[in-house]
Amino acid sequence: MKKLINKPEDFVRESLEGMAAAHADLIKVNYDPTFVYRATAPIPGKVAIISGGGSGHEPMHVGFVGKGMLDAACPGEVFTSPTPDQMLEAAKQVDGGAGILYIVKNYSGDIMNFEMATELARAEGNRVLNILIDDDVAVKDSLYTQGRRGVGTTILAEKICGAAAEQGYDLTQIADLCRRVNLHGRSMGIALTSCTVPAKGTPTFELSDREIELGIGIHGEPGRQRTEMKSVDEITEILTRSIIEDAAYSRTVREWDEDKGEWLDVELINPPLQKGDRLLAFVNSMGGTPFSELYIVYRKLAEICEQQGLQIVRNLIGPYITSLEMQGCSITLLRLDDEMIRLWDAPVKTPSWHWGA
Amino acid sequence: MKKLINKPEDFVRESLEGMAAAHADLIKVNYDPTFVYRATAPIPGKVAIISGGGSGHEPMHVGFVGKGMLDAACPGEVFTSPTPDQMLEAAKQVDGGAGILYIVKNYSGDIMNFEMATELARAEGNRVLNILIDDDVAVKDSLYTQGRRGVGTTILAEKICGAAAEQGYDLTQIADLCRRVNLHGRSMGIALTSCTVPAKGTPTFELSDREIELGIGIHGEPGRQRTEMKSVDEITEILTRSIIEDAAYSRTVREWDEDKGEWLDVELINPPLQKGDRLLAFVNSMGGTPFSELYIVYRKLAEICEQQGLQIVRNLIGPYITSLEMQGCSITLLRLDDEMIRLWDAPVKTPSWHWGA
Repeated sequence: MKKLINKPEDFVRESLEGMAAAHADLIKVNYDPTFVYRATAPIPGKVAIISGGGSGHEPMHVGFVGKGMLDAACPGEVFTSPTPDQMLEAAKQVDGGAGILYIVKNYSGDIMNFEMATELARAEGNRVLNILIDDDVAVKDSLYTQGRRGVGTTILAEKICGAAAEQGYDLTQIADLCRRVNLHGRSMGIALTSCTVPAKGTPTFELSDREIELGIGIHGEPGRQRTEMKSVDEITEILTRSIIEDAAYSRTVREWDEDKGEWLDVELINPPLQKGDRLLAFVNSMGGTPFSELYIVYRKLAEICEQQGLQIVRNLIGPYITSLEMQGCSITLLRLDDEMIRLWDAPVKTPSWHWGA
Repeated sequence: MKKLINKPEDFVRESLEGMAAAHADLIKVNYDPTFVYRATAPIPGKVAIISGGGSGHEPMHVGFVGKGMLDAACPGEVFTSPTPDQMLEAAKQVDGGAGILYIVKNYSGDIMNFEMATELARAEGNRVLNILIDDDVAVKDSLYTQGRRGVGTTILAEKICGAAAEQGYDLTQIADLCRRVNLHGRSMGIALTSCTVPAKGTPTFELSDREIELGIGIHGEPGRQRTEMKSVDEITEILTRSIIEDAAYSRTVREWDEDKGEWLDVELINPPLQKGDRLLAFVNSMGGTPFSELYIVYRKLAEICEQQGLQIVRNLIGPYITSLEMQGCSITLLRLDDEMIRLWDAPVKTPSWHWGA
């Protein structure tokens, strides 16, 4: 294993120390328990948005703390869920009195710990809701997941909900918006290579020089199919068609009901994409794939969308939700409405995402 | 070779087609000869800034075309200099009547072709100056270079000179500023792995699982030393000390003298860094190294600078000047003055760099 690290056990902490040194104007880092928070938090009267999950997916989430996006992010060890005390202390640190939204990717450990944190925070008098992201069309049920995994749509939800919070939306409105972003977002990824978790020191899985993994998970979880290497146009076609042709997807999730004061099972259905839809097209690097290749993916993606009568009106291309140094990419298509477009275009100023602010 | 490409010979063109499709609001692409230009160019009365070089270093240069940075970029084939006709046609496309600055990295092919383009453009009545960047302290003379190679400082010069052009500086002022940025910028890089040029299909060089290349060039040119893998703190210490302890570096470059109407040999000296200097610290990914590792590099870099009495007042961390999917990083330290800081902070809006605009 060759990585720019010292001891594997210091990887997350030292990376956060570097972030804190580089971006003291934007963020602060608390180390025990570990969370990154907006330097100006709490902001009175603003809903606080918090996310978190295993490390190794940077810039998600720690790189997205700041104006117009997250108030705090709770990083676990690499590919390991953060703990409820991280989420609880982050909530207490950034609570501006208007409530807190936890944005949670659909992995069993994350869900369990964010639900526990929700209950702990409520017991301490904070108003907290949590919304799941489960946008990966590749597989249903996976190594760490019941139902679909949460991937690229998470970033889009953080940006759009972060802008809404900045503009004074209340907690219920932001939770509804977050759920809507999730219901209209779909993703699928592909790996050319594995990554190596520092503490393990060997690749998470083996792929030969002629193989790829279609539908890869962001922790190297198996996808739909291991197959021989294909051209980028063929790969993009498979990912894009899988997303576009994905039928209505129905499942039940647990959401906190504030009126009843209990967890309820809520049925959610992702409506399929339709001709005429306006889309945000997101081509994401898994970490080790250069911009030049992402743009070749985007070229074919745009061509397919045009053929299908789908109109790409916004796009995002680069490394945003990664798997350490894994080579590969994911595509996310989010059906936009006017409100989402307005919020997408709003200013953002974080360590890793910065425009118009 | 596993890459997200179709045919190797279509790599550059298809990547540019993807960029054109994704960023039609910011850039346009001309294909014969190939150059990327700002959608609103020419801008009457504004000096036009043009750069270029081999592809494979994205986002440099094509990702930096737009408001507050480049007016045009001329991409060659992968790791291959662009041709004079690309540079000439780009100049004619974006000339707003206030002259053109070519920013040229110090590689023999680039210099030869940009000098020829300068003469051709002058013959057609354009006013053109060109300034070299030669900031890599690792080695003197290299595979494609006489003197030092041009690396990370190029990005900083493009940002600072681009802002100056936006603010109405004239051509002579911008050329002087660009020369000053080069004289105050120093870089050095390191590779953990080689990259693979698509048309070749095999790694440019071989490194074992326990070796690194200190002082790597951005085309895989040999550096100072091939050595055993070290901790990130040791690596950062070597790179940073090499930069900080670099003595005054004197050399002669060819610059066009407008008064005399001929090329003159000009002696330039990089003054060494001194205690109390204010710095821009740039930690760059060579393409395949994740953000988390870059921040661990930054952590040690900041510590060393503080010990040395050097004050980091701005930073840039991420993949900006890359070598396809190479794993590794480079560090650039630029001594700032008030004018450079003001220009650094100015708005920029390009496909790959976007803030405050």
